[in-house]
Amino acid sequence: MRIVVALGGNALLQRGQALNAVNQRDNVRQAVKSLAAVHAEHELVIAHGNGPQVGLLALMDAAYESGSAFPLDVLGAESVGMIGYMIEQELGNVVPKDDHIVTLLTQIAVDANDPAFQKPTKPIGPVYSTEDGEKLAAEKGWSLAADGTGVRRVVPSPKPQRIIEIDTIRMLVDKGVIVICAGGGGIPVSFDEQGHLHGVEAVIDKDLASGLLSKQLDADAFIMLTDVPEVCVDFGTPDQRSIRRAHPDALLEMDFAAGSMGPKVLGACEFVQSTGKMAAIGRLSDLADILAGKAGTVVTLEANGIEYA
Amino acid sequence: MRIVVALGGNALLQRGQALNAVNQRDNVRQAVKSLAAVHAEHELVIAHGNGPQVGLLALMDAAYESGSAFPLDVLGAESVGMIGYMIEQELGNVVPKDDHIVTLLTQIAVDANDPAFQKPTKPIGPVYSTEDGEKLAAEKGWSLAADGTGVRRVVPSPKPQRIIEIDTIRMLVDKGVIVICAGGGGIPVSFDEQGHLHGVEAVIDKDLASGLLSKQLDADAFIMLTDVPEVCVDFGTPDQRSIRRAHPDALLEMDFAAGSMGPKVLGACEFVQSTGKMAAIGRLSDLADILAGKAGTVVTLEANGIEYA
Repeated sequence: MRIVVALGGNALLQRGQALNAVNQRDNVRQAVKSLAAVHAEHELVIAHGNGPQVGLLALMDAAYESGSAFPLDVLGAESVGMIGYMIEQELGNVVPKDDHIVTLLTQIAVDANDPAFQKPTKPIGPVYSTEDGEKLAAEKGWSLAADGTGVRRVVPSPKPQRIIEIDTIRMLVDKGVIVICAGGGGIPVSFDEQGHLHGVEAVIDKDLASGLLSKQLDADAFIMLTDVPEVCVDFGTPDQRSIRRAHPDALLEMDFAAGSMGPKVLGACEFVQSTGKMAAIGRLSDLADILAGKAGTVVTLEANGIEYA
Repeated sequence: MRIVVALGGNALLQRGQALNAVNQRDNVRQAVKSLAAVHAEHELVIAHGNGPQVGLLALMDAAYESGSAFPLDVLGAESVGMIGYMIEQELGNVVPKDDHIVTLLTQIAVDANDPAFQKPTKPIGPVYSTEDGEKLAAEKGWSLAADGTGVRRVVPSPKPQRIIEIDTIRMLVDKGVIVICAGGGGIPVSFDEQGHLHGVEAVIDKDLASGLLSKQLDADAFIMLTDVPEVCVDFGTPDQRSIRRAHPDALLEMDFAAGSMGPKVLGACEFVQSTGKMAAIGRLSDLADILAGKAGTVVTLEANGIEYA
């Protein structure tokens, strides 16, 4: 099978953990064990988020010197270097020595007129107390959204339309190379009227980007890994129930949070509807069990509506 | 012909120019015109430096929060994202639409016992006045070296030994893909006794790294581009003379500055001696003339000692 795995920011950095090289590397070192097990039996393509990292890079940039801030496309590209390098290196240390892994910068084009540019929704950077967040937002012109008991900066998250490097990614996957790509949802770019690409101020949702990648690579499975074991209904209430299998038509009728589970569910359903293949959402450490249908939430045309765990 | 072009930090950012996204993109936009002309007739592989950028990223990191500084391997990987993205995007805007360009993170292994770790020589970040530089060095534990009338931070620059992703790079070049790789001299890594890779605190010289890349890709020409038109003897004196062609044996008998022209001359001579092919050093805007033997300094076994312009 050809499997695209999308690692959530929360799979790479535990909630509340400080973002530094040591913590991130520790998490990556755990993550690659599950990935290596998949690689041993399947073709593996790895995508990843960058929410915490791109936010941190923006803060570092702002702390050093005002007036020369790097835009989000460039910071996104930097975050791909940071995260992709660690995944590639640590994964290389646990797969057979002759196997090949590469990390590709991946530009993903969005529509310059996407309504998302008017309505920022994608959280980046750390969680702040409401007071601190509002002060920073006033200073820096940020938009904010609630996150747990605090707030986070949010930026536009337009829909991914086209993966610029897709032909080369496909060539490499066909040759058996493990490819790390579409990091951070891809570097957000847009075509102008002359057909030239330029960067845009956005962070594309990595689940939607990975879903597009999965479709274009004819993946047999598209797995989104995060820090929760399953998709739940009535999350955080006494009525909470875990979904084990779901038909995309049934799942799309339910409501999920726009900032977290919403794009995952949407990405999974779109992939399954357009390809007839399976998608799944679950915990990184459960990856093998998710593929065996024993953990996570599997979205498939074979499910009978919503099947609870 | 298969041509490896190494873009110097000074080809991407003019001396004295502020490092920000606008200036860097303007310079890249100029650079890709020369590169596209080469691509129209030859196989093209692009490497680049990262001295100013990796230094800036270190300063941004330090400005935001002390105690959690990212090491130079991670910052180097970030700089590859930043620079590679801009080159890939701008080059993509000037080559035929069906041509393929990718940017690959490139780990380059060095010897963990390289004596360079004891003697930092590679300048990164901005030029400071001697007073400011000495103050910063005392605060941050930097080593400094003179640069023009000021000083710059210097870090260890061990010799590149092995390009981890070389097989995949070769596969892509063989397929006609323009590959941007070995950025910043590669991400500096080292094998431990178990054969595992880990990052090291260093910045590999990009000319030596590109020379190794050129050898391993069987390149027909290895071109180092900077902001000076030729290699000169008695540089900056009334006796200054430009070298048009040189035999590597003759060139290696001369002395050049360790921080700037030295590694270029060494990289060129090593490549020519071990492959019999040509290397050249010159100005980005002269690239076509350098390939035609009309500009720059060409190092070749066909030269009669040192031939002046």
